[in-house]
Amino acid sequence: MELTEVIGSRRSVHSYADEPLSEETIETIFESVRQTPSSYNLQPWEFLVLTEEANQEALQEAAFGQEHVTDAAAVVVVLGNLDPAAHAERVFDDWLESGYLPDEEARDGLLEDVRSWRDQPREENRIWTTRSTALAATNLMNAAWDEGVASCPMGGFDPDAVREAFDISDGYEPVMLVTLGYPVDEDELEGPEKFRRSVDEIVHYDAFDPVAPGLESEPGIEAPADDD
Amino acid sequence: MELTEVIGSRRSVHSYADEPLSEETIETIFESVRQTPSSYNLQPWEFLVLTEEANQEALQEAAFGQEHVTDAAAVVVVLGNLDPAAHAERVFDDWLESGYLPDEEARDGLLEDVRSWRDQPREENRIWTTRSTALAATNLMNAAWDEGVASCPMGGFDPDAVREAFDISDGYEPVMLVTLGYPVDEDELEGPEKFRRSVDEIVHYDAFDPVAPGLESEPGIEAPADDD
Repeated sequence: MELTEVIGSRRSVHSYADEPLSEETIETIFESVRQTPSSYNLQPWEFLVLTEEANQEALQEAAFGQEHVTDAAAVVVVLGNLDPAAHAERVFDDWLESGYLPDEEARDGLLEDVRSWRDQPREENRIWTTRSTALAATNLMNAAWDEGVASCPMGGFDPDAVREAFDISDGYEPVMLVTLGYPVDEDELEGPEKFRRSVDEIVHYDAFDPVAPGLESEPGIEAPADDD
Repeated sequence: MELTEVIGSRRSVHSYADEPLSEETIETIFESVRQTPSSYNLQPWEFLVLTEEANQEALQEAAFGQEHVTDAAAVVVVLGNLDPAAHAERVFDDWLESGYLPDEEARDGLLEDVRSWRDQPREENRIWTTRSTALAATNLMNAAWDEGVASCPMGGFDPDAVREAFDISDGYEPVMLVTLGYPVDEDELEGPEKFRRSVDEIVHYDAFDPVAPGLESEPGIEAPADDD
C-alpha cells in the first residue's frame, strides 16, 4: 500500500477476529520495524510478542483489565533498553568498516561518549530509550496495517507489574503496548475519521505560537518583588 | 511510494542541496504527520519549522555546532506538550459526538482522569509526551522521504538552550530535531545499508531473552549478607 494510504486509512482497532497471525506475517512486519532510524543508530528496542492465552491474561492484569489485550491475536510489549551503549560497539564497527568513520580512534571516541551516557540520571536514559523506541512503534503499526493487520497503541499499564509478569529486568523500560490482529468490526474501520489537530495548528514557522500553554514546572509563580 | 519501499530505502542524510522546501511540500508532509495515533488521541505534538538562516544558526549553537543544521532547507524542532490534558476536551467531545462515548458523564470522567495526570511527577509527563510525540516523528521522516525530501533525526542538543533561543516555555519538552532537505550526495543515498539488528534478535515470542542485560538501576548490588 502507498505510504499515504497506510497513514490515512489506519484506524486503532479494539475488536479482533479469532484468527492467529502467522509467524511469517509477524516476521514481515518486523522486517520493516528493524529498519527504523534511531539516534546514532543505537536501536535500543526489543519486542516481546505475547500470543499465548496465559501470557495475554497476565498482561491484561497489568493493563488494568483492558479487554482487547486478550482479544488480540498478539500483544507486543514494546521495550527500550536503558543502556545507550548496549549495541554501540557493533554499530560503530559497522561505521568504521563502511568508511563512515575515518579510523579506530574516532570509533573509540564515539564509543566512550556513548558509554558515558550510562552515568546520566536514570530519568534521562528513560527519555532517551522511550524516544528511540517509540520511533520504531510507528513503523510497527504502519507495517502491520500494510499486511492487513490492525493495531491499537496503549499507554495504560503498570510497568512494574509488566516487568514482574514477564521477568523483565529494570534494565529495560516498558515503553508501550501494541495489540495486533485481524479487524472484525466494520464500524471501527469505516467510522468517521477521528478528530485530529490541523496542520495550521501544529506547524509553526520560525516562531513558536502554540494554542495551549503547556504544563510549566512552576505555573503561576512570578518573580518576587524587590524588598525595599 | 509503497510503505515498505519508503521504510527500506530511506537513509539519514547530512548533505542537502541549496534548494528550499515549498510551503506546499511542508504542508503535504505534515498532513501525514497529523494523522499519527497517540494514547487517548491526545496529540501532544508541536513542530517548530526553522527555515530562516538566523534561526538555524541559533539552533546550531544549541546543537553543539552540528553542520547539517544550517545546511538543511528546514530544521524541525519536535516539541511535546507536557500537559496531557491540553487538547483533551476537544478529543473527548469528538468521541461523544461520534458515539464512541455513551454520554456526557463518561466524557467528564475521562476528562477528569486525564487532568489528574497533570499531578504526576514531571518525569512521568516527560516520558508520556516523548512517547506520543516520537510516534509522530517517524511519520514525519517517512512522509518527507515519500516527497523526495531527506531527513536526519538528531538527539544531540541542549534542551534549555533550544527553549531560550526560541522562547519556548518549560511547559514543552524539546523531544528531538529533524533536519529536512533535498539530498545532494549520491553516496549517502546509495551507500551500503547500515547495520540493523536482526528480526530474530529483537523479537521474543512469549518469553523475554534479550542479548544485552540492559542498564539496571542498581547493577551489581547484591543482597547484604546476614550479620551473625
